Amino acid sequence: MHSGLEAVRKQGLTVHCTDVPEVRVPRAQVYARPEEIGPVDWVLIALKTTANAALESLLPPLLHRETALVTMQNGLGNEAFLAERFGVERVMGALCFVGVNRLAPGVVRSFGRGTISVGEYQGPPRARTEALAGAFHAARMESHIVDDLLAERWRKELWNVPFNGLAIAGGDVTCDRILADAALMELVLGLMKELLAIAAACGHPIPDSYIDFQLSRTRPLGAYQPSSLLDYRAGRPVEVESIWGEPLREARKVGVKAGRLEALYYLLQWLTAARTARKPDGN
Amino acid sequence: MHSGLEAVRKQGLTVHCTDVPEVRVPRAQVYARPEEIGPVDWVLIALKTTANAALESLLPPLLHRETALVTMQNGLGNEAFLAERFGVERVMGALCFVGVNRLAPGVVRSFGRGTISVGEYQGPPRARTEALAGAFHAARMESHIVDDLLAERWRKELWNVPFNGLAIAGGDVTCDRILADAALMELVLGLMKELLAIAAACGHPIPDSYIDFQLSRTRPLGAYQPSSLLDYRAGRPVEVESIWGEPLREARKVGVKAGRLEALYYLLQWLTAARTARKPDGN
Repeated sequence: MHSGLEAVRKQGLTVHCTDVPEVRVPRAQVYARPEEIGPVDWVLIALKTTANAALESLLPPLLHRETALVTMQNGLGNEAFLAERFGVERVMGALCFVGVNRLAPGVVRSFGRGTISVGEYQGPPRARTEALAGAFHAARMESHIVDDLLAERWRKELWNVPFNGLAIAGGDVTCDRILADAALMELVLGLMKELLAIAAACGHPIPDSYIDFQLSRTRPLGAYQPSSLLDYRAGRPVEVESIWGEPLREARKVGVKAGRLEALYYLLQWLTAARTARKPDGN
Repeated sequence: MHSGLEAVRKQGLTVHCTDVPEVRVPRAQVYARPEEIGPVDWVLIALKTTANAALESLLPPLLHRETALVTMQNGLGNEAFLAERFGVERVMGALCFVGVNRLAPGVVRSFGRGTISVGEYQGPPRARTEALAGAFHAARMESHIVDDLLAERWRKELWNVPFNGLAIAGGDVTCDRILADAALMELVLGLMKELLAIAAACGHPIPDSYIDFQLSRTRPLGAYQPSSLLDYRAGRPVEVESIWGEPLREARKVGVKAGRLEALYYLLQWLTAARTARKPDGN
């Protein structure tokens, strides 16, 4: 849990950027336990969704009556998870469209500036939504307010499901190779169409043209390795449930057939479990 | 094409059996080209379906007016392939339920006796069907005559599609490990249900209980490696089109959704092509 804590405490945080000078935060405020922090106005949650169970004990020391919980995590179901345990009123979400890798404890590489979309889990944007977007702006992060946070999550799933999934199931495949292969592209498109059907049945219609948009923004990424592939390779947990399991469960709830998603989900469950069985040092 | 020809010509054919004494055929009649054989009454076709294009030149020298073509090959579409090129009247099929591995040129290992089902491509069994089954019997092979050959092919697909497919897509998995994993078994059952729906829509209804039968006959196989997995590992062509491609195309013709089969088909297309790209010595 505390990987990097000591390094950041001693050396601060360094972010190597591709388009702006290096960013350094010499004295970052870092803590090992939430009890050392106490109640706060905002909690930005960046935990892997595979560790969500830990939030049940991590969050209570941070809460006052008005504390907002902002899940910046991947996939679906994280807002509902928080709402069920800490009250729907507290829950907000943010989607990070960024490419970042941790090079070493306290050292991060950022590929371009990226953007953050923020929104309310329930209901339209309000004062606190503006305040959060404003705080990101003040820190020179491009941010947007979205009216329908869950629709935005489905839009991101449209990319994560096929590209993160096939990168692993295809046997270690980068985005450019997926885009160049006719068979994998048939499967990418088939998965995207299933997701559009599920999202629409869940009340979040996305226009078909969004598929082309997602593909066109993937081409410039070149030999990009989706984050789940990096996790898989490194023996770290892969967010199988939040990225693939949750949309499949939504499909079943609304009665939409999603056979391709189902096949990919079960294969990824098996592949990630089999990998952990092979590598006892995987965490 | 002629692997083993010289060895069989010199040493004959040896079959190691698990339940009966070794079988030896000291002087096997083998030929390099069909022109050396000339017209015959029966042609038993045991070529890999990935080499079907070669049949267009291999078969004509063997044909007289009444020659019967018996495809003993895997998957779907082989009878139609032959009927289109050589006339529907000639075409028969046989399904081999056997476990055999070639240990060396001219040396085969057989796991148990197995059975052969024979039938007509079009119409009910007739005199030649009985004659073929009788010839297998006379050679001490258990054989059956089937009234609906294509229904029998679909029944075999019910096993080949999930077990051959997941053995490769799951990353080199034997049958016992597939049976023991909850996620892979969900996918096995989902694939089997899709195949039942396609077969029924194609006019070959198979009772749901056949799923349990197929699973119960898989358990005793233990750590069995499906033949497609052996082909894949050895860098030989995998029969992707006849085992997975054909049932998918049938599903599309009859308008049955088969998303799991589609996902598996495209993944196998990619995995086998990617493997060939990695191994330029693969044939």
